[in-house]
Amino acid sequence: MSSAVRAVCLLSGGQDSSVTLAEARAAGRETFALSFDYGQRHRHELDAAARVARALSAREHRTVRVDLSTLGGSALTDAIAVPKERSHADIGRGVPPTYVPARNTVFLAVALGWAEVLGARELWIGVNAVDYSGYPDCRPEFLRAFEALASVATAAGAERGERFEVRAPLLSLSKAEIVRRGLALGVDFALTHTCYDPIVRDATVLACGRCDACQLRLRGFAEADVPDPVRYVRDRSGASERP
Amino acid sequence: MSSAVRAVCLLSGGQDSSVTLAEARAAGRETFALSFDYGQRHRHELDAAARVARALSAREHRTVRVDLSTLGGSALTDAIAVPKERSHADIGRGVPPTYVPARNTVFLAVALGWAEVLGARELWIGVNAVDYSGYPDCRPEFLRAFEALASVATAAGAERGERFEVRAPLLSLSKAEIVRRGLALGVDFALTHTCYDPIVRDATVLACGRCDACQLRLRGFAEADVPDPVRYVRDRSGASERP
Repeated sequence: MSSAVRAVCLLSGGQDSSVTLAEARAAGRETFALSFDYGQRHRHELDAAARVARALSAREHRTVRVDLSTLGGSALTDAIAVPKERSHADIGRGVPPTYVPARNTVFLAVALGWAEVLGARELWIGVNAVDYSGYPDCRPEFLRAFEALASVATAAGAERGERFEVRAPLLSLSKAEIVRRGLALGVDFALTHTCYDPIVRDATVLACGRCDACQLRLRGFAEADVPDPVRYVRDRSGASERP
Repeated sequence: MSSAVRAVCLLSGGQDSSVTLAEARAAGRETFALSFDYGQRHRHELDAAARVARALSAREHRTVRVDLSTLGGSALTDAIAVPKERSHADIGRGVPPTYVPARNTVFLAVALGWAEVLGARELWIGVNAVDYSGYPDCRPEFLRAFEALASVATAAGAERGERFEVRAPLLSLSKAEIVRRGLALGVDFALTHTCYDPIVRDATVLACGRCDACQLRLRGFAEADVPDPVRYVRDRSGASERP
């Protein structure tokens, strides 16, 4: 059995969680990638997560079904419109309609359960500063509160005094820094999927380029001065593929 | 719209969560009962939860699928033997094999998500002192840590400073006191299901009478000097139905 420190890494299949998994690997962790089927409106994210886990040599990759759509309340799981073409100022203001209530709390809770089974004491999550302006469960105080909870919630914590650590290596990086860090760590961004509202044309998944997630991603690649290898409905080089 | 305080109440269908739901109703709450299909080895619990929610006039009852069996590690979701005929001293010692890693953390996290959607600020849970000797996530320090987490994890907490409260009215009651309290509140214990390892004979669900859950339940009824209306494999009046 390997003596490497085990880490459960939340992996959505987007660029941030993929870079986070690469960071855990670079730190010498034995990684266990965890994805969620939570009633998202599309499955391309889960396909991307499987590709990324394989490419980054995760020891295991599991997908847990948590049917949050049963509870309603988000454009990501309900029939609420995904906002488009919002300004960068608006993206950073208030809780957006794509917020899934308590999503990161649920995801980290399940990760904690798997960590207990595996004997892992680290949970890695790809939250970052640009996101947490809008999402309450992406802030540092949330991550610290979860660590405190984990240490009293588990047999390892309660019986043996072991501490759980939530690692968020992207927390204070800009989207451009995340792109550069990912490239340095060998992340193949062509494998990732970020868009909230993709379409499939001729068996190819095309990102919309207009939802908050696409806009943040595109800004990151633009600021890093690197082309985004993912395909968009509207070709970013200028030639529109859209009627 | 009712002005009653809304409460999300975790409801497994066992006696403790049923009495907890009755307590929330008695306290004037508008109750939203939440059950989980988490890969338990049997579905009788979920049937019981639906019966109890109806009998106790829950405003809504929802069942969320959270596939914890994907992660392994418990006799309740895996092919690990449910322990039988353990002494009361053993039941109260250490983490039992029926412990599902981080189960209450996951359940409260999902409850928190529903509470956000509903505008509820209370989560009611039927943990109690007899259980928490073995289960780390049944202890008061766990409940307080979850309240702290909830208040930073949510839009209501982060933006409007609202606090979430975890109510555990059975926390310091004995199993006999829970039975007496339930009867005083009009709980029909015949509707509940507690056994970890039931069998079905002639279309009737029979509790095993020997697992930890049955033993704690039976002790509660015996100490309250009240007959348990649930049917057991071995008739508790003395006549064995078992070959």
